[in-house]
Amino acid sequence: MEIKVVKKVLSVNDAIAEEIRRQLREKKVFMINLMSSPGAGKTLLLEKTISVLKKDFKLGVIVGDICTTRDSERLVRTGVPVVQLNTEPFGGDCHLAANLIQGALAELKLDKLNFVVIENVGNLVCPAEFDVGEDKKVVVLSLPEGDDKPLKYPLMFRVADAAIVNKIDLAPHLEVDQEKFVRHIRQINPEIPVFKTSAKTGAGLKPWLNWLTRQAKTKIQG
Amino acid sequence: MEIKVVKKVLSVNDAIAEEIRRQLREKKVFMINLMSSPGAGKTLLLEKTISVLKKDFKLGVIVGDICTTRDSERLVRTGVPVVQLNTEPFGGDCHLAANLIQGALAELKLDKLNFVVIENVGNLVCPAEFDVGEDKKVVVLSLPEGDDKPLKYPLMFRVADAAIVNKIDLAPHLEVDQEKFVRHIRQINPEIPVFKTSAKTGAGLKPWLNWLTRQAKTKIQG
Repeated sequence: MEIKVVKKVLSVNDAIAEEIRRQLREKKVFMINLMSSPGAGKTLLLEKTISVLKKDFKLGVIVGDICTTRDSERLVRTGVPVVQLNTEPFGGDCHLAANLIQGALAELKLDKLNFVVIENVGNLVCPAEFDVGEDKKVVVLSLPEGDDKPLKYPLMFRVADAAIVNKIDLAPHLEVDQEKFVRHIRQINPEIPVFKTSAKTGAGLKPWLNWLTRQAKTKIQG
Repeated sequence: MEIKVVKKVLSVNDAIAEEIRRQLREKKVFMINLMSSPGAGKTLLLEKTISVLKKDFKLGVIVGDICTTRDSERLVRTGVPVVQLNTEPFGGDCHLAANLIQGALAELKLDKLNFVVIENVGNLVCPAEFDVGEDKKVVVLSLPEGDDKPLKYPLMFRVADAAIVNKIDLAPHLEVDQEKFVRHIRQINPEIPVFKTSAKTGAGLKPWLNWLTRQAKTKIQG
C-alpha cells in the first residue's frame, strides 16, 4: 500500500514537472538542478559560477534547505535574485519537489530571466527521484567523500547529465584516487561529462563553465 | 492525504521498534545506530571501534546501503558477524526502517551477542526520522562538510545521543573553525557529548570508546 501511494505522489510530481518544462520552453529559460551530499561545496561553487555567468545571462537562483537561510544569504551577495525554499514546514522534506519549484519560479518572475539555478537540499539519495522540470541535473561530489560513492548511490549518477568532483585542492592530504573516482562515475553512467574542480582555488572551473554556457545557449537561442 | 499515510508508516515502524527494544532489553543486548552524510568516515571509524570493543563485548554489525556490499566486506575483516542490508529492492530507500533491522537481528542470532552496531545509509536527513529500537543514536560529521551542517539538518542533531566530528586530521588544510562546529551542534542539542576524532590517525578515539563502553556496560550489566 505504501508503494502505491509513493507512486501516486511521484506521478503528481511528474505532471507538475512537465508543466514547468513546458513553461520554460515557451519562455526560453534554461534551468539546472544542482544536487550533492551535505557539505560537498555546492554553495561556494555556485557563488563562483554565478559571478561569471551573470555577465552573459539573466540569472535567478532557487535555494533549497530544510531550514536556515544561510546559503541564500551567501548567494544574494552575487547580486542576482534568490528565492529560499525551506522544507521544514512540510515535514523537513529531504528534497525539492516540483510544486515547490513552481512556486519559487512564480516569485522569481520568469519574464525577466533566461537561466535558473536550483541548489537542492544536501542529500545524495532522494532528490534524484524527483523531476522538477529542469533541463540538466548536475551532481557534485567532493574528494573527501571517497571514490566509492557513485557505486553506493547509483541512481543519482544514473540520472545526472554532468558530474563535478569538487575540493580537488585537498588531494595531497587524502588517500583518494581521482582516476578511480571518475572510473566509478563512468561505471554507472558511461557518457557523463566529469569536471574536476576546486571552488576554493578556482582550479578546473573553466571547462565546467564552458559546458554550462554551451548547454544554456543551445536552449535559449535554439 | 500523503501526510496521513506517512504518519501511518511511521506508527507501524514505531511499533516494530518498540518490539525490538523489548527484545534487546530481555536479552541484555546494547544497540547503537550510527548515522552520517555519505563519506563522513563511518566505516573506518567502525573498523577501529570494533577492533577495540571486540575484546570486551560479543559484537554483531548491521550495515545499511542502498546497494553494494563494499562496507560489509571491509567490516567482516574485523572478525565479527556482519549482516548487509541493501535497500535497493525496496525502492532504493534512503534509510533503514525497523522491519529491516528486525530481520537482520534474527540473522545475527541475538543469543550469542551483547552489542549490536548499525551503520545506517549515508544520509543526514531521513534516517533521523526512523526509530529502529536502538539504545543510542550517534551522528558522525566530518570536518570538510563545514560547520553549518548542524543548523541546516537540525533533526539529526536533536535526536542524537552523541556526535562525532571526524577527519580532524584535515584541519590544517581547511578553513573550518572546530569550536564553531561544536557550538553549532550544542545550539541544537545543548547537552550532547561531542567527540573530535580522526579515524585515520586514531586521534581522539579514546574518549569515544570510553563513552560507548560505559553506555553498553550500563545496559548489559544493569
